[in-house]
Amino acid sequence: MAHQSILTFATSRRGLQDITDAVADVVADSRVQSGLAHVFVQHTSCSLTITENADPDVLRDLDTVLARLAPDGDPGYRHDAEGPDDMAAHARSVLTDTGLMVPIGAGRLLLGTWQGIYLWEHRTGAQRRRVVVTVLG
Amino acid sequence: MAHQSILTFATSRRGLQDITDAVADVVADSRVQSGLAHVFVQHTSCSLTITENADPDVLRDLDTVLARLAPDGDPGYRHDAEGPDDMAAHARSVLTDTGLMVPIGAGRLLLGTWQGIYLWEHRTGAQRRRVVVTVLG
Amino acid sequence: MAHQSILTFATSRRGLQDITDAVADVVADSRVQSGLAHVFVQHTSCSLTITENADPDVLRDLDTVLARLAPDGDPGYRHDAEGPDDMAAHARSVLTDTGLMVPIGAGRLLLGTWQGIYLWEHRTGAQRRRVVVTVLG
Repeated sequence: MAHQSILTFATSRRGLQDITDAVADVVADSRVQSGLAHVFVQHTSCSLTITENADPDVLRDLDTVLARLAPDGDPGYRHDAEGPDDMAAHARSVLTDTGLMVPIGAGRLLLGTWQGIYLWEHRTGAQRRRVVVTVLG
Repeated sequence: MAHQSILTFATSRRGLQDITDAVADVVADSRVQSGLAHVFVQHTSCSLTITENADPDVLRDLDTVLARLAPDGDPGYRHDAEGPDDMAAHARSVLTDTGLMVPIGAGRLLLGTWQGIYLWEHRTGAQRRRVVVTVLG
Repeated sequence: MAHQSILTFATSRRGLQDITDAVADVVADSRVQSGLAHVFVQHTSCSLTITENADPDVLRDLDTVLARLAPDGDPGYRHDAEGPDDMAAHARSVLTDTGLMVPIGAGRLLLGTWQGIYLWEHRTGAQRRRVVVTVLG
């Protein structure tokens, strides 16, 4: 039987927010000492990533890179039902991660010193996002 | 002991096909109530992704985005043994996912309303693709 | 209780190195017959991928593709504390994988014939990289 929690996060705009502590809390509650923690967004226009947690410029630059790879309002897109950021958000979701797995050792997430777990909003407006955390050990 | 099945899919051309139901059937057979389902392609020129299952234009647009990021027949590629789509297919596989994990709760895949699991053929011709589904709970 | 090992690899320059055998050794030691092997880098400027293990030109071409998507020294980056390859390395990490999961069957990795597991150094200089392998069955 896995330990599972559904978390909800409010996002206010496009960009990355650090959810490492919320995931770590689920791992602590599970009392699993050695295993894996899985994090999953139930959406197709936001995503997850693990990246550097020290310099906020890294987070800004990651959005700059994605803006080139999947720009808003690209004339090549057919899908624009919810506006110019709609298809861009789906594409950015596919180029990053809907789900992430982090190892657990000694009862805690085995992240490197500079690694944080981020929820990445790709829509330009505020959203509520559901994140499923599952711990197996 | 994990519950594991190897599925085979025929692809007819480049593009995405929805394999959610086939994965859900393996989860149902496993009788796991709470856990994780892992989906894995045993190939390096196709991949997996989770994306919107409502508007087929999203699937078409995703191929449009990848065609820019890793075009066929790019003069920068050295590897072209199997034709102009050969290296493009490897690159598109690396930019998307060889494996995916989906949480299981109450005996079913905890996908969001608009999420589908897709097998993404990156070669231009028909292929047979092996997909390993592993369920842990 | 998961079976877990932390491996260390020396990288000498940007590029991919095959770590399949090292991961397979951890799986063999675990004696797990059916399950999943998770591989995770504790860094944000290198990554993991599964790609073709036959033609070394594929590995070179993958770096060519990433060099276009996230070039060194891009004037759009703000983060350059460790040089022109610093932010490019973070972006390449995010576009590929910090963690990978491979199914295990009959006590071995269920990789396709042409699949290898690669550690991908994105910094231009030599590094030491920690990789956590976790086996669940």
